[in-house]
Amino acid sequence: MRNIIRLGASPRISSYYSVVGSSEHEGPLGDCFDHFSLDDKFEKDSWEKAESEMQRLAVAGALKRAGLRDTDIDLLLAGDLLNQCVGSSYGLVDFDIPYVGLYGACSTCALGLALASLLYNGGACKRCACVTSSHFCASERQFRFPLEYGGQRTPTSQWTVTGSGAFIVSGIGDVAVKEIVFGKSIDMGISDINNMGAAMAPACIDTIKRFFEESEHSVDDFDLILTGDLGYEGSKILKDLLLSEGIDIRKIHNDCGLMIYDRKKQDKHAGGSGCGCSASVLAGDIIKKLESRELKRVLFIGTGALMSPLTLYQGGSIPAVAHLIHLEVNDYDS
Amino acid sequence: MRNIIRLGASPRISSYYSVVGSSEHEGPLGDCFDHFSLDDKFEKDSWEKAESEMQRLAVAGALKRAGLRDTDIDLLLAGDLLNQCVGSSYGLVDFDIPYVGLYGACSTCALGLALASLLYNGGACKRCACVTSSHFCASERQFRFPLEYGGQRTPTSQWTVTGSGAFIVSGIGDVAVKEIVFGKSIDMGISDINNMGAAMAPACIDTIKRFFEESEHSVDDFDLILTGDLGYEGSKILKDLLLSEGIDIRKIHNDCGLMIYDRKKQDKHAGGSGCGCSASVLAGDIIKKLESRELKRVLFIGTGALMSPLTLYQGGSIPAVAHLIHLEVNDYDS
Repeated sequence: MRNIIRLGASPRISSYYSVVGSSEHEGPLGDCFDHFSLDDKFEKDSWEKAESEMQRLAVAGALKRAGLRDTDIDLLLAGDLLNQCVGSSYGLVDFDIPYVGLYGACSTCALGLALASLLYNGGACKRCACVTSSHFCASERQFRFPLEYGGQRTPTSQWTVTGSGAFIVSGIGDVAVKEIVFGKSIDMGISDINNMGAAMAPACIDTIKRFFEESEHSVDDFDLILTGDLGYEGSKILKDLLLSEGIDIRKIHNDCGLMIYDRKKQDKHAGGSGCGCSASVLAGDIIKKLESRELKRVLFIGTGALMSPLTLYQGGSIPAVAHLIHLEVNDYDS
Repeated sequence: MRNIIRLGASPRISSYYSVVGSSEHEGPLGDCFDHFSLDDKFEKDSWEKAESEMQRLAVAGALKRAGLRDTDIDLLLAGDLLNQCVGSSYGLVDFDIPYVGLYGACSTCALGLALASLLYNGGACKRCACVTSSHFCASERQFRFPLEYGGQRTPTSQWTVTGSGAFIVSGIGDVAVKEIVFGKSIDMGISDINNMGAAMAPACIDTIKRFFEESEHSVDDFDLILTGDLGYEGSKILKDLLLSEGIDIRKIHNDCGLMIYDRKKQDKHAGGSGCGCSASVLAGDIIKKLESRELKRVLFIGTGALMSPLTLYQGGSIPAVAHLIHLEVNDYDS
């Protein structure tokens, strides 16, 4: 089993579009996002329908930015956190594109980009779209408590981002996907649903270690190692444990869950999470910084916690997964 | 957008293993399956843990049949019907294989085989495994009623199969994957959770039509057109509507949901369903008949209903998807 899959044909991120809710719009990246809703409802009458609408808006926006129609896309890869991934299946049903459903929890953005890049690279598709989303209100009532209950949140809990990000992968664009490492499912015995960062960090460490063990690159070759989303708790664990293994990412690490909210002004506990967090940060901020050459080489590691409320009620701990994508601007060769 | 993806490198189904519960063991294919549990518990203390155990047994069995270890596999693609696909994530956590989570409802077997074949074909992986499962008792309480409630079932309702099927895709084997058509998500307004066959048939029709519109093959070139799982209701709709479009599959159609139970002796209403239905029938019966040349060319169309109980409570109808795989024995060229 090899760890790194290298992509000879260099699939590119040809288009992208981000959609967020009100808290994300008020955060430090607020101006970066393409579309927002001030009441988080996106003109729909349920949180789940609002989440589906975010995915529809994100894919439509990415198509429009690229000057494409839905029938120009060979495959649409999508998934989300809702039971049976209905954010995706209901949001995308109007697009005339073959549909592949994914489940990677908060790693779904990285998983979709990885598979889309490989399907382009292998010649199966000329253009793939991928999209994911999460909605704070829909997630709270599904995974924890209905909002009306007014439950207290622990300091280690992360805040599910209301947001969506869509991408189109093809042969056109300045940002190339160069390498991929698919994550292994790893369960280190964490069973606290309010400390997902700790549950996901070990999977992230495993993937990053496997990358650097086999890569020709060192940490210093990258401008940014971006995780999504470990939050404050998980990021600290990640950096400390990697350091103890001789991999020092402290200077260039950031986490989408840390970037999307202002910790001083916004009461979001351990930071953002949810499929929509890394998807909207990548589509709203990181890809643009690569296109402008403010960033040139980025490792993006999407992390997902693969439990359900039921498995925790039954005494299970939380398996997690982390998929890695090496992004690079085309003309960068140092 | 092209419909058919043709696979030049001809990925093969190198190994397979099927695991079923008691009703499936008592059915017409009972002797075909590799492993069964008489109490459907697989020595676990919850239905969900039993489902995870089925996936573990299926992957371990497929590895053993091929003489491989987990570390020989590049990627494991898996999904199921449980919320957050925990049948897969908990069942497979002990395998040392990078993990890709899928959500295709009952189309997951076809979806996993399709992606595994493309990842082999494109050079990303030398060997992929894919697996899926469903468990009657876990599905009933998640989607409908707890068994203890003793709810009456309507005649059009399908019976979720307790079963799992795993496959290994590589360059070795007698059964090749020749062509793939990914399904579009299609919603024709059916909102009856007890008539999933009717909800899924339109997606299946769309995929089969797109295949024959673009293929060099006609219906007569195939020994079997196998859907999984439309049951009695959906199969009748499929055959009638395709006939009205000039495609007569009546002589060579069968459905995994019709094959797995004996309608006269077993009270399973409109037939079997669930991710484990087509996976166990394919792994237990169809692949073996291809290997023995009893079948030579088969179209397998996995069909999935992409709703959740919540979306139906909120007034939604049922979007469905159907992915097609053209299977053929290696030495068949007529």
